[in-house]
Amino acid sequence: MRPKESHPRLAGGKVSESTIRRLSLYYRGLSSFERKGYKTISSKDLAKEGRLTPAQVRKDLSFFGSFGTRGLGYPVKELKEKIARILGLNRTWNVALVGVGNVGSALVSYKEFPKQGFNIKLLFDNDQRKINKNHKGIQVFDVKDLASKLKEHKIDLVILAVPASTAQAVTDDVVSAGVKSILNFAPTHIKVPDDVTLRSVNMAMELEHLSFSLVNKGYPLKF
Amino acid sequence: MRPKESHPRLAGGKVSESTIRRLSLYYRGLSSFERKGYKTISSKDLAKEGRLTPAQVRKDLSFFGSFGTRGLGYPVKELKEKIARILGLNRTWNVALVGVGNVGSALVSYKEFPKQGFNIKLLFDNDQRKINKNHKGIQVFDVKDLASKLKEHKIDLVILAVPASTAQAVTDDVVSAGVKSILNFAPTHIKVPDDVTLRSVNMAMELEHLSFSLVNKGYPLKF
Repeated sequence: MRPKESHPRLAGGKVSESTIRRLSLYYRGLSSFERKGYKTISSKDLAKEGRLTPAQVRKDLSFFGSFGTRGLGYPVKELKEKIARILGLNRTWNVALVGVGNVGSALVSYKEFPKQGFNIKLLFDNDQRKINKNHKGIQVFDVKDLASKLKEHKIDLVILAVPASTAQAVTDDVVSAGVKSILNFAPTHIKVPDDVTLRSVNMAMELEHLSFSLVNKGYPLKF
Repeated sequence: MRPKESHPRLAGGKVSESTIRRLSLYYRGLSSFERKGYKTISSKDLAKEGRLTPAQVRKDLSFFGSFGTRGLGYPVKELKEKIARILGLNRTWNVALVGVGNVGSALVSYKEFPKQGFNIKLLFDNDQRKINKNHKGIQVFDVKDLASKLKEHKIDLVILAVPASTAQAVTDDVVSAGVKSILNFAPTHIKVPDDVTLRSVNMAMELEHLSFSLVNKGYPLKF
């Protein structure tokens, strides 16, 4: 039997948010098994890491063209590299962060980002006391120059940590610079064109899931 | 026709993560329309806020016992209060935060939390330089006393902003104190008993969704 095409785009366009999330979990599981010296791994072990069923794992991986060998399982290193390639983790990305306040500042120090190839190259703020200075070794530019600097430094991905009130205006500048990926921490809904991928993290909404489960006991939610 | 029971627990136990997420979006939409002085709102306007279809909005709201009036729509204030009750936002919650590092410190300053009734009452750390001092007006306790302090102060909800290496041990203490809701920022998988609700926010995983869409152009993902 010919293996399925490994590239998700050619597999019918059926890559959902939850599939990507599971791939992220597999990637973490495989990295951890690799560190422990494992050469091969069963779908059962991989399922345990992500709280899934072995059947789900086998289905996901066959979709991406990986097949385990009966009695041996999947080769850890190869599978990890394949998933890294699918997720874009086998290379580095140029990241800019807008808004050097509390949240932005915490994100600059977040060690997982560079580990996974996300390098914060530029910072932007509208506060004159912060502009043209270094923050944790990274230069802070005036947000007025956002679009031109993003182009000049070939930024792939922008993180927004600005107040809700300015989020849309900043987003419009980011989009005008041709950036196709935005991670938004501003607690508001922002609009982007269809060819731009936007992810929003709203910490208060995370807490609402928890308060829901507190008022509706008997609904412990696992995510 | 008798309206359906408004309490989700009695409606067949079919409350999914995405339903709660939509309720959060409706809540935000309704708050914004209320601020603008609207008394009633159509399912179409509410759908626009959350990028949904009017049919989905009507289905969700009927599930929670709310029915619009033809030609008038839904009463903004009443519907907002109803959703607030379902999400547990019509009261305050006692929150403790463990780990006063970069991420923890940003969360302490996050203004959305108190606005929605989540009050951070206690902080914990294992750094002697931080213990027994105030951080932004909140006392920092020794993480060794976590379980007893959580009980003493009747904490409903714990936010973990600790390194991956200590996350499980801290979680075990939180669980032993009887806390049923945990929001985890540690970049690791942690285990909790079935009656505890756990939500994890992994910022690197958020970025992986974006890098996936960058390497797989033509897959702009909207979430």
